[in-house]
Amino acid sequence: MPAPSPGCSITLRVEAPVSIGAAGLLTTCVGEAGAVLTALDVVDSGPDRVVVDLTCDTVDGAHAEAVSKALDDIAGVTVRRVSDRTFLMHLGGKLEVVPKVPLRNRDDLSRAYTPGVARVCTAIAEHPEDARRLTVKRNTVAVVTDGSAVLGLGDIGPAAALPVMEGKAALFKQFAGVDAWPVCIDSQDVDEIVRTVELIAPVYGGVNLEDISAPRCFEIERRLRERLDIPVFHDDQHGTAVVVLAALYNALKVVGKDIRDCRIVLSGVGAAGNAIIRLLLPLEPKEIVACGRNGAVHRGQDGLDADRQWVADNTNPDGFAGTLAEAVAGADVFIGVSAPNLLVEADIAAMADQAIVFALSNPDPEVDPAAAGRHAAVVATGRSDLPNQINNVLAFPGIFRGLLDAGASAITDDLLRAAAGAIADRVAPEQLNAGYIVPSVFDPEVAGAVAAAVRAACGQPAG
Amino acid sequence: MPAPSPGCSITLRVEAPVSIGAAGLLTTCVGEAGAVLTALDVVDSGPDRVVVDLTCDTVDGAHAEAVSKALDDIAGVTVRRVSDRTFLMHLGGKLEVVPKVPLRNRDDLSRAYTPGVARVCTAIAEHPEDARRLTVKRNTVAVVTDGSAVLGLGDIGPAAALPVMEGKAALFKQFAGVDAWPVCIDSQDVDEIVRTVELIAPVYGGVNLEDISAPRCFEIERRLRERLDIPVFHDDQHGTAVVVLAALYNALKVVGKDIRDCRIVLSGVGAAGNAIIRLLLPLEPKEIVACGRNGAVHRGQDGLDADRQWVADNTNPDGFAGTLAEAVAGADVFIGVSAPNLLVEADIAAMADQAIVFALSNPDPEVDPAAAGRHAAVVATGRSDLPNQINNVLAFPGIFRGLLDAGASAITDDLLRAAAGAIADRVAPEQLNAGYIVPSVFDPEVAGAVAAAVRAACGQPAG
Repeated sequence: MPAPSPGCSITLRVEAPVSIGAAGLLTTCVGEAGAVLTALDVVDSGPDRVVVDLTCDTVDGAHAEAVSKALDDIAGVTVRRVSDRTFLMHLGGKLEVVPKVPLRNRDDLSRAYTPGVARVCTAIAEHPEDARRLTVKRNTVAVVTDGSAVLGLGDIGPAAALPVMEGKAALFKQFAGVDAWPVCIDSQDVDEIVRTVELIAPVYGGVNLEDISAPRCFEIERRLRERLDIPVFHDDQHGTAVVVLAALYNALKVVGKDIRDCRIVLSGVGAAGNAIIRLLLPLEPKEIVACGRNGAVHRGQDGLDADRQWVADNTNPDGFAGTLAEAVAGADVFIGVSAPNLLVEADIAAMADQAIVFALSNPDPEVDPAAAGRHAAVVATGRSDLPNQINNVLAFPGIFRGLLDAGASAITDDLLRAAAGAIADRVAPEQLNAGYIVPSVFDPEVAGAVAAAVRAACGQPAG
Repeated sequence: MPAPSPGCSITLRVEAPVSIGAAGLLTTCVGEAGAVLTALDVVDSGPDRVVVDLTCDTVDGAHAEAVSKALDDIAGVTVRRVSDRTFLMHLGGKLEVVPKVPLRNRDDLSRAYTPGVARVCTAIAEHPEDARRLTVKRNTVAVVTDGSAVLGLGDIGPAAALPVMEGKAALFKQFAGVDAWPVCIDSQDVDEIVRTVELIAPVYGGVNLEDISAPRCFEIERRLRERLDIPVFHDDQHGTAVVVLAALYNALKVVGKDIRDCRIVLSGVGAAGNAIIRLLLPLEPKEIVACGRNGAVHRGQDGLDADRQWVADNTNPDGFAGTLAEAVAGADVFIGVSAPNLLVEADIAAMADQAIVFALSNPDPEVDPAAAGRHAAVVATGRSDLPNQINNVLAFPGIFRGLLDAGASAITDDLLRAAAGAIADRVAPEQLNAGYIVPSVFDPEVAGAVAAAVRAACGQPAG
């Protein structure tokens, strides 16, 4: 059973008889039911009865119910209410739109709105490039999804994807001061998605595509990049690739290998896998072998779609045609952006000495991290409860901060590699070890360092 | 020449010799140049020279330059810099997107974002109606324009319209706590606009159409109302009509007339005119005659578009076919939502006794308000520097507050009339007079009163 998580934290309001042992009875019950108690607050107290709020982390909804039932089954104890703290946090949405200007009196109104605003409009009509200076375009990113590949949940549609996009927008503001707004599109037609983003683009200084399924995401990104004069970033591709590359830079330092001597095996040729290959190729690794569900992608295959054909043409020069497990034998680096439990301990044991394993399928990695750690020199995952969490939040806020500051119109792979280098450099040489190859997601300096690297890659002098 | 306005306020940084009369010299010069000084701040002072910031209202950009030149022409005086306070206010845009939830640590992150957010997404996927409870949809309105009819500026396009939409969104938040977001669409094709709004609708609890030219705005509104399950409001139609009706309710009280005895002449059969007629008809005025650019709209005309044909079919029962000036003769009420200076003083003098004149073309009314005031009993305009300003900000914030609170899926004309009644009722009987027929736009109670009336019209009990 997975561990209880603060993502599934509940508060139980419980009425119990007053007795010396009441509190102990309740907390013991919670612990025996497998939950982790994080707070106990007395809400009301009388001569015979006491009402307490028990807050605890649980595993999932079913476990939360089991904990509640266990308490209710104690003689004399009644569970009055169970509140889910995650749902409470989402009530009414997680974003608000706030004026940056005062509107207290007539003078304020006449500048922020009519009649004064007319002069600002006229200035933009005459000099369209002034839109970035005089409107929210300067600091605003569209977080665009069609809800087709949301987290591990799959195709849940645009309305159900909204809580994720709101969360993403909240992270943009919190980590980099970027104003981001959710655009949840009620269509999965590529033409319609492209056209919709194109039509609403005047308000935005950048586009962050999110949770759109492959291969549609590639086509949408390509066509938007052709049509728009603002940068288009697909976090599932580019964000993941940047953080993976940052982690790889540092992992290679830990094991003392040069990427040009490394055989790299990739599991997953979807959005992330494709982008990772693009960032890696110019660094000239000795070899990349990418595996899909049917084993290694190679030139001898028929019926590959355009994106997989590109992978076949640009990796696996020896035409290796075996399974993932066969590919991993002797490899220096394994990068998994695919599915849970594809490899076993013996597969990792068969890798080269001082192997690097990034098993990023979430929440269940491609290989058990503990088992991998018995053989590989460096292990990283996407999980927050293990060392070396590879998390996109290290990348996207700073990347867009830099792009907006530079007034950038496009994103290049060089720019993404520069961002990866900046993330890697936030781990100082004296901090670097096999359990600390990427900075903490709460390191407040990461976004600024990434933004500076992005501005420099855009040709702006360091600030 | 129009009066100086705080909408065109500038700050001049001026260096002048130290002398007893220096300050007086500068302020006199500003006054003689026709500007209104609102502040004088000493920025720096030395033995020989003083640097001051002179802030003053001017008429327009050319006048601001003239004021600057007049100061610079004084012997020994140098204007170092001229800042336009309206432009300063717009720098970087007027809105920001702010998280409502804390993201300080791992626990926060795991509830607001992954992994906790997945449970919220799943809940919405299983119960789509929960989107209003668990996302920003509950409190968010799209402010949609194509930039085709912006203020008095006309077709300036979506980017140049953005400062107005930002201002509108700021007013939504300030006056009613509604989160509004600008959607500036880079197309004037009706099909594309309708489809775009339909596709991005999952994020929003309502749509406010803004500054879209007639007759396209009617078709867009009609089709969106058919397709969406959230209310669609066109401020230029419904907002204006609501405030006009509120003002008319009170003006009729002032003059002691019943609307069923009134002949009403309307100038303008665009967005606002059409909606005003729709709200007035069920109140059974004695007669409505609506005039376009070519005089009265009547049943005998050929080649009317569908919306003007509707006007012809539902107004002007006697088939009057004359000019606007001819129509106004003997009328009890004139409502202008059209163009400047269409009527002269004699036209107003020819109206019925105790006439009501709403000349709402902005900034220049259909008739000079001073001249109208010599004959009509009640005069109202759209201008902020005269009594009885008829301003949509009295209507739209409270209307959407009520619609969102009620979880409304549509807007009816009855609901709009209820909103108008609530605005009118904010002027207490003891306050009502010919110079105070609508409440101040800064009356903090208006939005709440309108929202309560809207909720009641949606069938919700008074709160």
